[in-house]
Amino acid sequence: MSNAAFSTLAEFRACLKAGPKLDSGSMKAAEARNGQLTKPPGALGRLEDIAIWYAGWRGTDRPSLDNPQIIIFAANHGVTAQGVSAFPAEVTAQMVLNFEHGGAAINQLADCFGAKLDVHALSLDTPTADFTKSPAMSEAEVVDALATGWKAVDPAADLLVTGEMGIGNTTSAAAILTALFGGDGSVWTGRGTGVDDTGLDNKTRVVNEGVTLHATSDPLEILRCLGGREIAAMAGAIARARSEGIPVILDGFICSSAAAVLHRVAPEALDHAIAGHLSAEGPHADVLSHLGKEPLLNLGMRLGEGSGAALAIGVLKGAIACHSGMATFAEAGVSDG
Amino acid sequence: MSNAAFSTLAEFRACLKAGPKLDSGSMKAAEARNGQLTKPPGALGRLEDIAIWYAGWRGTDRPSLDNPQIIIFAANHGVTAQGVSAFPAEVTAQMVLNFEHGGAAINQLADCFGAKLDVHALSLDTPTADFTKSPAMSEAEVVDALATGWKAVDPAADLLVTGEMGIGNTTSAAAILTALFGGDGSVWTGRGTGVDDTGLDNKTRVVNEGVTLHATSDPLEILRCLGGREIAAMAGAIARARSEGIPVILDGFICSSAAAVLHRVAPEALDHAIAGHLSAEGPHADVLSHLGKEPLLNLGMRLGEGSGAALAIGVLKGAIACHSGMATFAEAGVSDG
Repeated sequence: MSNAAFSTLAEFRACLKAGPKLDSGSMKAAEARNGQLTKPPGALGRLEDIAIWYAGWRGTDRPSLDNPQIIIFAANHGVTAQGVSAFPAEVTAQMVLNFEHGGAAINQLADCFGAKLDVHALSLDTPTADFTKSPAMSEAEVVDALATGWKAVDPAADLLVTGEMGIGNTTSAAAILTALFGGDGSVWTGRGTGVDDTGLDNKTRVVNEGVTLHATSDPLEILRCLGGREIAAMAGAIARARSEGIPVILDGFICSSAAAVLHRVAPEALDHAIAGHLSAEGPHADVLSHLGKEPLLNLGMRLGEGSGAALAIGVLKGAIACHSGMATFAEAGVSDG
Repeated sequence: MSNAAFSTLAEFRACLKAGPKLDSGSMKAAEARNGQLTKPPGALGRLEDIAIWYAGWRGTDRPSLDNPQIIIFAANHGVTAQGVSAFPAEVTAQMVLNFEHGGAAINQLADCFGAKLDVHALSLDTPTADFTKSPAMSEAEVVDALATGWKAVDPAADLLVTGEMGIGNTTSAAAILTALFGGDGSVWTGRGTGVDDTGLDNKTRVVNEGVTLHATSDPLEILRCLGGREIAAMAGAIARARSEGIPVILDGFICSSAAAVLHRVAPEALDHAIAGHLSAEGPHADVLSHLGKEPLLNLGMRLGEGSGAALAIGVLKGAIACHSGMATFAEAGVSDG
């Protein structure tokens, strides 16, 4: 596990409570600049907020966004034996090939917004254990997945989006969220790739069985017992991004379950992250509410792969372009109201 | 008025009731393609809808979006004599220079999304008449403004965004909408660049006075009596785009007032248009509801200049990239659920 900052869950936990903060000096300077730009105060709405937030994390009042990185983590889930998905488990590996050949939605969005796309398949031939029978992962396995995510982040990136592919992973995410936030599994379980009412009842049963079997309130234990390797890897990557001062756009339901684990360990572990979109996966709005994040987009997307967050790169790019490229009232000779 | 398809309001009205329709064959072919792409059905949400709509207007099941055009129309308003804006009228001309020098928000967004930006200043030295005293424009003046918009559209563009600059124009738009849709002026009057409560009361008085003075239900007469040259030019450009099969992304409150005039003449005159965003200008949501348009973005923007629609170019580009670039299940060898 060389190059990762941890080799146990306890050490990973410590990483989340340490690390850099947003640079309040740069943020204040960016706020001051924003007030001088040739527009009525507040007229760019949330674009102003996210540009100032980004400036704070990049440590400059006039940042640019040139090197976004999208990382997709793929993994297989033993819980698919419970019939929780509308698609067969072999689709995970087939979609990894599709990512590698440039044929998936995320490939098109990465090209569209100038992002580098990296794909990491995590032990596809060794699914996690069926969490209705035993913990999904051993400590060594979950630490390995967290470390894969940690090491996948390019320190030269200036924005990170984490995406995923893993047949069965909305069930794993629902179980994690049920264990983290409480309530019956039905509150946190959605239709995923499109199961019918009978399928949804079955998913909910599976979620409740898993949460009951692995009764724990420790967020990292919840991740180990109910998670998937790709979810752990996303958590590791999001944590690494903070340690490097790289802002993150969170994707939808699965990504938010990874983020929720970090948030439960230390709320400040997500200070460098904004929510890219509200997924059509039913419980996502409640997850974002728990995380205190307002989504940028709400377009009924529920694909995963990082697709909603990738689309939001365009919004953030526009915000930063305005903030850093606009003339001030004084520069343009425009009368300030 | 050479090159425009009309030289009277009656002739312009006829243009709105004629013209091409969306190509239903291409739209059906695009729907069929969408069903074969490597994603669960509907998982890209509204991206799928707007890609299919765009395909229908471009007459191909696999379109590209390479040449978006943004046109900003600027004009001055006699109604500023009534103290309706937080900014002085000379800011219109100052902002035109800012557009020409590349310093405004719309310049940054145009660059960010690869759009050509054209700026048309309409008789800035001759404001429209104060509509609380007399009609804002003669028939010759409003036809001239419509024709300026009509001729400003590049037939080689594959998307149009119309933006505007005109101190006082939220008052003009509010008056148009009050006359078109009824109710007291307070329903359709917002804070524009940021007037206080007293300023808002004054704007509402001005709107009601104008609507009462020019009692008419003819949409094009409403445009002539209460409009501004930039609002008429936007209406002309939106109409021309339809005649060329060029899809349109509507911007916020002012743009929507221009679109509402066309819609009242002939609802099909906006079939080629989608709403780019919901403006923070209070009454915009009601305007979009009258037009039957669901906004793509809701980010609290209220700048004008076409800025909200320009940002939505990124969303549409992403949608089209996915639709036209993704592999099908068969091409990728992925099992279809």
